[in-house]
Order: sequence, then C-alpha cells, then structure tokens
Amino acid sequence: MTAVFERIAIIGVGLIGASIARAAAEFGAAANISLFDANGEVRARARALGMGDVFDDAVSAVADADVVVLAVPVGAMAKAAESIASALKPGAIVTDTGSVKGAVVDSVRAHVPQHAFLIPGHPIAGTEHSGPDAGFATLFQGRWHILTPLPDARPEYAAAVDKLDAFWRAIGANVERMEAGRHDVVLAITSHLPHLIAFNIVAMAEDLENVTESEVVKYSASGFRDFTRIAASDPTMWRDVFLNNREAVLEVLGRFSEDLAALQRAIRWGEGDALYALFDRARRMRREVIDAGQDTAEPNWGRD
Amino acid sequence: MTAVFERIAIIGVGLIGASIARAAAEFGAAANISLFDANGEVRARARALGMGDVFDDAVSAVADADVVVLAVPVGAMAKAAESIASALKPGAIVTDTGSVKGAVVDSVRAHVPQHAFLIPGHPIAGTEHSGPDAGFATLFQGRWHILTPLPDARPEYAAAVDKLDAFWRAIGANVERMEAGRHDVVLAITSHLPHLIAFNIVAMAEDLENVTESEVVKYSASGFRDFTRIAASDPTMWRDVFLNNREAVLEVLGRFSEDLAALQRAIRWGEGDALYALFDRARRMRREVIDAGQDTAEPNWGRD
Repeated sequence: MTAVFERIAIIGVGLIGASIARAAAEFGAAANISLFDANGEVRARARALGMGDVFDDAVSAVADADVVVLAVPVGAMAKAAESIASALKPGAIVTDTGSVKGAVVDSVRAHVPQHAFLIPGHPIAGTEHSGPDAGFATLFQGRWHILTPLPDARPEYAAAVDKLDAFWRAIGANVERMEAGRHDVVLAITSHLPHLIAFNIVAMAEDLENVTESEVVKYSASGFRDFTRIAASDPTMWRDVFLNNREAVLEVLGRFSEDLAALQRAIRWGEGDALYALFDRARRMRREVIDAGQDTAEPNWGRD
Repeated sequence: MTAVFERIAIIGVGLIGASIARAAAEFGAAANISLFDANGEVRARARALGMGDVFDDAVSAVADADVVVLAVPVGAMAKAAESIASALKPGAIVTDTGSVKGAVVDSVRAHVPQHAFLIPGHPIAGTEHSGPDAGFATLFQGRWHILTPLPDARPEYAAAVDKLDAFWRAIGANVERMEAGRHDVVLAITSHLPHLIAFNIVAMAEDLENVTESEVVKYSASGFRDFTRIAASDPTMWRDVFLNNREAVLEVLGRFSEDLAALQRAIRWGEGDALYALFDRARRMRREVIDAGQDTAEPNWGRD
C-alpha cells in the first residue's frame, strides 16, 4: 500500500509503541519509523529488534516526522509533549495512546504549538505483557481505535484527523471518534473498573490468613486465574490511569459496590430467584461480545 | 490401560458429566458407562452423541455400577442421591462433582446406605459452556481434582478412596485430598468470589444510564470481555453454589469489599505510591499461576 505518512515518530517503546512500529512496517502505513524511549535499555532493545531509526533524544526523533505518537504512561504525557514541542515541523500531527483522554488533553495541549495538530487517541487493544519485546504487528487487527479530536474549526485540522484515521485503519483498526469526556466515562466501565477489581482480588488473595497463596495458585483454574492476567498489566500505566480518571472511576466503582452489596444481601437471605435472574442476565452479554467480534467463542479461550 | 472401574454411572449429563463420560471412554478408565439425566432432551442428546448406555431412569442407570457420579447442581444433589439409594450394589462408591462440599455432605450422607461408600469430590476444571455437547475428554488434563473423604475408619472405605483417586488420575487429573470445610473456604476465594464479581460487573454494565450496552460490548477488549466469559457459566449451578457456601463466600466478600474501599480511598486522595505498590504486587501472582501449569503464558491467552 501507499504509506499514509512519510515518517512516523514514536515516543515510548513499550507494548503499544512497539506494536505501532511493527504494524506500520508490516502494513506499509508509514515509510519511515523514528523511535525514542527515555530508558536507554529500551532504546538498545528497540535497536536490537530492528524496529526503525532509534534516536538518543526525543528532539532528533521527531524532526521531520509527519506524525508523533506519544506512547507513554498518562502521567508522563505532559513531559513528553514538552520535550518535543520545539522540534515539531509545521503541519505535524501529535497524537497519543493514553487510556485517559480528558487529563491528557488538559496537560498536553499547552505544549503543542499552533502550527501542529493535537489529535488525542486511544487504541482499545493490548495484552498483559509490557516492553518492546511484547509488541507485535497484528495487535490492532479488528480492535477499535478511539480518536478524540479537539474542537478546532480549521480545515487543515479536519484533514489531519482524516489522515490519522486512515493510518489506524491501515494497521487494521476500526476507528471511532468521540468527545474526550465521553471516552473517559465509557472506558471507566469497560477497562478501568475491570482492571481495578482484578488488581484488588489478586492482591487480596495474597493476604488471606486462612488460605495460602500456593493454594490459590493451585486451584486457580476454577476462576481466579482469569483475573491474574489483567492484574499482570503494567503498574505504572495503571497508577496513572486511576490518578487521571478519578471522577469517572469513582462513579462506576460506587455503582459496582452498591450492586455487590445487593448481591451480598441476596446471598445472606438465601434469595435464590434473585441470584438466578441476575446470573442469567449476565450470560447474554457474553454472546454479544462474541457476535461483535471482540472475543473468541472457544471454550476457555482455547487456552487449555 | 486396565479399567479402574468395570461400570461407572453418571447422573447428570452437563459439561462435567459429559466430560467424565468422554474421558472415561477415551482413556479406558471405565469399561462401561451408564448415564442418566432428569431432562429427556439431554438424554436424547447423550444418546445421539454415543456417550454410553443412556437409561430413562436413575435406578436402572446405577444398578450394577461400581461407582456413581452425581454431576448435578449442588441444590439437586440430595434428590439425586435419594433417587439412586435403593439400587446401589454392595461396595458401590457414590461421589459427586459439586463446587461446594460441606453442604453436599450434609444433604447427601443420609441417603447413602451403609453398604456403599460416599466420597465427595470436586474437579477444578470447566468452561463457560453448558450441556452434553460441551463435554470433552481432555477437560481434566493437568487440572486438580479434590476429594473430601469422610472420617470413616473402615479399611474398605480407604480402599474405595484409593480406587476413586486412581480413576481421576487415569483421566488426567492430579488428585488432592482435604477436609470438606477447608475445600469450601479455599474455593470461596479461588472460584466463588471471582464468579460473583464477574456476574456483578456484567449485570451492572447492562444497567448504566450514561453508557449504552452496545458501547460496553464494542470496547470490551480493553478488559471487560474477560469477565463476560465466567459470567456466562450456568446460572442454576452458580445460584446453588452461593446458597450452599454462604458463610465462606460472605467472609471473602467482606474482605474484598474492605480492600476495594481502601483502593477507592487511595484513588480519591491521589495516593499514587500506594496504588503502584498494590498493582506491582498483583503482578507476581500471574507468574506463579503460569509456573504451576494452571494457565498459558500466551499474551491474551492466545485468543487474538
């Protein structure tokens, strides 16, 4: 295919940054790939893996780039944006891959010069693994990428959004556009709360007095193991998510606890019909997720 | 191999009963397989699938059986035991596959005659699918099977436990023995609580006013989809688990809610270090589960 961008610069070579580099190369979505990571060991690894042109400073990496992707934890976005601001060429697109959008817009916007276009984004894809070695070209295939464009009336801005949209489609994603605040509310339920309760149950299981950790591990195939996967995700990334999407997370968390208290009461009072009705209802959602192509129908995900 | 049992009778042909039938045949662990299910359609399906000798009444199914496996929901165990009691031959083993052991022992024991041996059990294996078609021969490979023998001093009882142990090993399981009450406390954390919170978050996501169900489904690959799998498990089975392991479930649920409240407070007050420390700790458990052979190390379970 014809490359959407002549040169893409990726700041942060973790699972997501590395996957974008791999995908851009594999699907020919960018003719040239520049990379920078603040961690020297990660840069060395990216070089060893042949991911593109790896630079030792962010400014050199973004010079000449048509699009700069900030693929760092949400809490590191502002600093990353600041470090590249002076080197952005006229018409350059600045985007990101943060799991929170409102806070990123607020902290990054001030650093992006008028001659560049800030278009925040978030790929709804990932694995529990981290670092450059975890990246792979097909991570975004069939997954959604959410763009949260700013209210910017310039026709050049609209054209930049279309171009970024085309890039994500070129590497296999479906693209949706929405307002940043809306993104944060939707992701609080689909992503942030699930991770929080997975972290909570896994950490809690380590602390029990009457059941040993090795017993939990041994019998984990009865349900618990599912939670260990997302609880293995990068702790820095997730700390930043919760610090930066506090309001929406606290709201769904309150709702979750309220509903859980009702379930607890139904168990205490032996309300079998209420339990059955709720469990039966939950089943339907599984079918919808599979029908939407967002999960496999294989029992146990085919892992056994 | 030489069959461990000359004839096994399986009462209840759902995922577990059907998998035992398949496994017993595949690995030659029983020379003959008798089956009964209270549901006529299930019996017809078991016949069509060629699972063994399917009987139209429980009494005929267990006559001549060396071991009878009650593979019905926990709440149906007492009735199933009562229905077969009169037909058990001297020395027959009665076992079950219920996810709760204390309540099953209490409700089943009175129905098992002195000339038979009640040895409760629980295979730590399953999928989110239900019914006879969901059964497969390798379900128990590398998984644990827990036996909770009664305090019975007869040497014949000990020999029966060893024989049942050999059967489960023959179909691929590792076997562990523990006291019924201990089983119920351990499974409350490894299985019952994870299912409860999965049911809770999935049902809750249907009820939100500010996020639509289709948005949840669409962006579910960001974490939520993991929970839909176990929330798709059989609602009757799970209702019975919670009604029959109430005390242990309420205890771990109380602990879960307490820890979640602490996490909620850490988010509200922006305590990044506390969040990081907890998330980092949760990560270690994943490695232990994989090292114990209870899950695959493939990113996203290899499903994408």
